[in-house]
Amino acid sequence: MRISERGLVSLIRRKLESNCSSREVILGPGDDAAVIAHPVGNALVISTDALVENVHFRLDWATGCLLGKKAFLASVSDIFAMGARPQTCLVSLGLPVRTEPAFVEDIFDGMLEEANRLGASVVGGNISRSDILFIDMTVTGVVQPDSVITRAGAKVGDSIYVTGELGGAALAAKNLLEGRIDGAMVTRAEAALKVGNEISETESDNAGVIELLSRFFVPKIRADESLLLAEARICTSMIDISDGVGSDLGQICEESGVGALVEIGSIPLFDKIPTMAMTEDSDLTELAINGGEDYELLFTINPTDEARLHELLGTNALCAISRIGRITPESEGVVYMNSKGERFERFAGFDHFAGRAAGNR
Amino acid sequence: MRISERGLVSLIRRKLESNCSSREVILGPGDDAAVIAHPVGNALVISTDALVENVHFRLDWATGCLLGKKAFLASVSDIFAMGARPQTCLVSLGLPVRTEPAFVEDIFDGMLEEANRLGASVVGGNISRSDILFIDMTVTGVVQPDSVITRAGAKVGDSIYVTGELGGAALAAKNLLEGRIDGAMVTRAEAALKVGNEISETESDNAGVIELLSRFFVPKIRADESLLLAEARICTSMIDISDGVGSDLGQICEESGVGALVEIGSIPLFDKIPTMAMTEDSDLTELAINGGEDYELLFTINPTDEARLHELLGTNALCAISRIGRITPESEGVVYMNSKGERFERFAGFDHFAGRAAGNR
Repeated sequence: MRISERGLVSLIRRKLESNCSSREVILGPGDDAAVIAHPVGNALVISTDALVENVHFRLDWATGCLLGKKAFLASVSDIFAMGARPQTCLVSLGLPVRTEPAFVEDIFDGMLEEANRLGASVVGGNISRSDILFIDMTVTGVVQPDSVITRAGAKVGDSIYVTGELGGAALAAKNLLEGRIDGAMVTRAEAALKVGNEISETESDNAGVIELLSRFFVPKIRADESLLLAEARICTSMIDISDGVGSDLGQICEESGVGALVEIGSIPLFDKIPTMAMTEDSDLTELAINGGEDYELLFTINPTDEARLHELLGTNALCAISRIGRITPESEGVVYMNSKGERFERFAGFDHFAGRAAGNR
Repeated sequence: MRISERGLVSLIRRKLESNCSSREVILGPGDDAAVIAHPVGNALVISTDALVENVHFRLDWATGCLLGKKAFLASVSDIFAMGARPQTCLVSLGLPVRTEPAFVEDIFDGMLEEANRLGASVVGGNISRSDILFIDMTVTGVVQPDSVITRAGAKVGDSIYVTGELGGAALAAKNLLEGRIDGAMVTRAEAALKVGNEISETESDNAGVIELLSRFFVPKIRADESLLLAEARICTSMIDISDGVGSDLGQICEESGVGALVEIGSIPLFDKIPTMAMTEDSDLTELAINGGEDYELLFTINPTDEARLHELLGTNALCAISRIGRITPESEGVVYMNSKGERFERFAGFDHFAGRAAGNR
């Protein structure tokens, strides 16, 4: 690092000053801790998530800006998945001595862009020297206690829904890890992606690859959707899909004491796949179920509320949703079935320590 | 790691269940995020800090339990330094694949022991695979907004005080890094140290080394002291000494727009030094000023409030405090002077990226 810790901290503080203009921030970065006003009648919601070099990304293809965006989005996704509104975040960086200050600035620029878009202030953090780069983000939110949507309320007979399309992030990760998409393309994607995931016209030739990369680096956080669902109080359980439908639906079933029957063919798959990104072993269904990192919502709802759900979505122009199955008694387990009625071995989801079927993080 | 991620998470959740019995914890570990009741009229205080392998500790001498204690204490210290009461914490672990589950359990045992002692609940966290071990802790607290003590209020003429004794943690670090104290002794220290830093009688022969190690691993967090000082509203500024008096007093001066004159001889030094831990270049004054990690409090106070300060301390049996100097105009800078009136070059404090004078983290 060609800058002192104090110099780096000053640089970051200047960058953060404008972002802490929210009236809720009583004291922003620069003291022992940040001080935040808390809205009366609300509970505090808090979660943490980390991006680690050589595990979640490699520096030969990741850019600081896109890492900053992804680190924030992966963390804030957990806040929305509770039906809560994000308020603040703190970033703890582990930085190798070789890290350029400009790279650190890029991390903060990317993070701030997304935090501003989704209504959160970056109020503090920490930097440590480290042999590997890591970005650990804690996000806080606020919620009226009776609007919280946990993983534990799914009931037998409930319908299971997911938002958007799945598998894109895992396919992007597979291409990055296997070298079919390189750092030069990621850099072009960074330039082409603006807040809101619009792809600029100058990059229309590469639009397919950029769209694919956006699923990995700038996942579509369902902010408005989750807040409206929470307000409507029609979801019996909700989770964000960080480890794949297999693992995350498994969490809901475990916490709710229920089983599930999923119709594999009804899982909405990312389908704008550029030719160069598709290999023989790229089974999108497999990636959607075992891949993860899409950060779409998975939720359950009593069938009597489905009309209300679709009305809510239509009126507010929310994203597409798909019914992928239904909740069954716990004794029936979690079953994945195709349209011919053939059952597949239960999908386990990604395990960070045991490795996984697809990909090799 | 000889356990799946899911197995490890289950193990940790069982361990955390009993600790989340606080009525303030609406929803503890196991969902997308934790949900916490927030006391009306209070602001949220939040801070984060990390311990990183090969930077803050080495695995050939650190134990899981002592790392868990230190990670929590270093983070919670920032909450108390604002005059706030800690409420919850989240732990984000980076774990090498080789990590034994028992080591992870030890981290949580140590952390929980200290968190319970100081009134905080561990409400959530994250585990990631990582090439190096890191423990990143975020602690939240609550405070009445007008009781907050920042770094920014020191006034010319204020007296500068520190709690306890300084230099012990840095001397312990020096001995650990230079190999004079090894892992076997750390393991004995772990067994001998109970909550509250009492040394058991069976280890009286090694009491000196254990006491020294306790300064590094289980620093004396001034919980009662900081809360009483906040309540009394007599401190014009406060900081916890994490990087040494040099750096941390420098922070107060920078934020307050003032200078300082420190009488070096009045800095209270850790003096129970075991013979084997003292080397020719172990200058305790140097370690107290540039070493850090003591987590004692440094605060400023108007001289007219000093009688009240001493009365408060005596009545409540708080720790010893020492007046080490006074606040001067900004134009006079920060000056360190000995009893003969000789001035020393301004002490810079520890810079994690630029290296430092004493020690070699």
